[in-house]
Amino acid sequence: MFLAKVTGSVVATQKAESMVGQKLLVVEPLRVDEKDQSSLKGTGRTFICVDTVGCGEGEVVLIVQGSSARFTPQTGKLPIDAAIIGIVDTVQIGTKEVFKTGT
Amino acid sequence: MFLAKVTGSVVATQKAESMVGQKLLVVEPLRVDEKDQSSLKGTGRTFICVDTVGCGEGEVVLIVQGSSARFTPQTGKLPIDAAIIGIVDTVQIGTKEVFKTGT
Amino acid sequence: MFLAKVTGSVVATQKAESMVGQKLLVVEPLRVDEKDQSSLKGTGRTFICVDTVGCGEGEVVLIVQGSSARFTPQTGKLPIDAAIIGIVDTVQIGTKEVFKTGT
Amino acid sequence: MFLAKVTGSVVATQKAESMVGQKLLVVEPLRVDEKDQSSLKGTGRTFICVDTVGCGEGEVVLIVQGSSARFTPQTGKLPIDAAIIGIVDTVQIGTKEVFKTGT
Amino acid sequence: MFLAKVTGSVVATQKAESMVGQKLLVVEPLRVDEKDQSSLKGTGRTFICVDTVGCGEGEVVLIVQGSSARFTPQTGKLPIDAAIIGIVDTVQIGTKEVFKTGT
Repeated sequence: MFLAKVTGSVVATQKAESMVGQKLLVVEPLRVDEKDQSSLKGTGRTFICVDTVGCGEGEVVLIVQGSSARFTPQTGKLPIDAAIIGIVDTVQIGTKEVFKTGT
Repeated sequence: MFLAKVTGSVVATQKAESMVGQKLLVVEPLRVDEKDQSSLKGTGRTFICVDTVGCGEGEVVLIVQGSSARFTPQTGKLPIDAAIIGIVDTVQIGTKEVFKTGT
Repeated sequence: MFLAKVTGSVVATQKAESMVGQKLLVVEPLRVDEKDQSSLKGTGRTFICVDTVGCGEGEVVLIVQGSSARFTPQTGKLPIDAAIIGIVDTVQIGTKEVFKTGT
Repeated sequence: MFLAKVTGSVVATQKAESMVGQKLLVVEPLRVDEKDQSSLKGTGRTFICVDTVGCGEGEVVLIVQGSSARFTPQTGKLPIDAAIIGIVDTVQIGTKEVFKTGT
Repeated sequence: MFLAKVTGSVVATQKAESMVGQKLLVVEPLRVDEKDQSSLKGTGRTFICVDTVGCGEGEVVLIVQGSSARFTPQTGKLPIDAAIIGIVDTVQIGTKEVFKTGT
């Protein structure tokens, strides 16, 4: 899995019928800054994910990719390869809290 | 999933028999411009996808990869790893609409 | 899926028993030249694929990766993650034919 | 699979229900230093994994990705794409021990 | 699949129980040298694979990734995403033999 920031959303009226009603969010994957290991930074990449946890823009989330994205109650047999499965409260690296929600 | 622009098409007469009749499109993945977060830009990569939604060249679409590409009514047991599952109307990043179809 | 050029072949006498008799080809993935969108060019990467369509060296082919490589009649339960599923006749980008077999 | 160093942990209160009780660790993939082949070095990438072996921060571990991350007794049908399946004691390259735990 | 050179081995005493007795090898993926297409060269990347063919250090092998790594008699339901499924005798690119075992 990887950490990502929710940056936006996608509207697609014409789509696979099973996808109707699924919220499609734009996310940017994050990584631990390799210089000082004390913050998260964006990678510049762009993924589209189905939201299974009711998250909102600006939140840091946990993303699962591949066939496992179909292993949540909401995503059963959907034609998707990425889902948001958690909203991150904190990320700790060593003794340092590098991310805390709401700060 | 990822966003991509449909740029072309592929013709292959000799192919796995189950693929007969499937439309093969060339797409270029897109990403949100990391500089200003206000537009989509091409990544220069090239993928071939099966179209399940009846899209056309120039359209921005939603692509699913991997085993999940087989989870649409049309693609059941096809030997494919990428399918177009939606035609994108709009992409919103923050308060800004970075893509709108037809504009 | 992706486009690739068949560049060679691999011989491996000691191998998983189910792989006996499978033709192993070396391919180099291709991409649409991002500068002028008018030709295909090599990416320098190297993959090994099972041939399911009877292709030969120098041909441009369509490759499927991952679990879907097992979804052809010939590759059923093989331990493979890449198969050639089509021989490409033409690739069209916009109004331009960027590849045509035999030319 | 790949080698990685456990660098931290993630707390996510709101998440897919099946994930409750799963320990989420932050890992940085390692590679053999290509210059002298005599040490492991970080790649700067960041993955989040479920721990199935009771490992701790600073340890070098073995990570499985994709659908196979669901093939441990603890991870059965979890919506995860990466799991820690072993704690590494030693890594030997040629005649040289490039990693030994506790040193 | 891809070609790789076996460069070492990993010992992990604490691991998923089904992995007991599996030989874990370190491999470096190879590619055809894009300059002259006349040799194989290392990519500097590091993967850990289960050996299913009894290979040894220094050998060039064929590696399968993903769920298909579970499709050999020895690897049935193992939590692995990469397996060595063949020992390479020769690799031919065009009219040139770019690798031959034992030379």
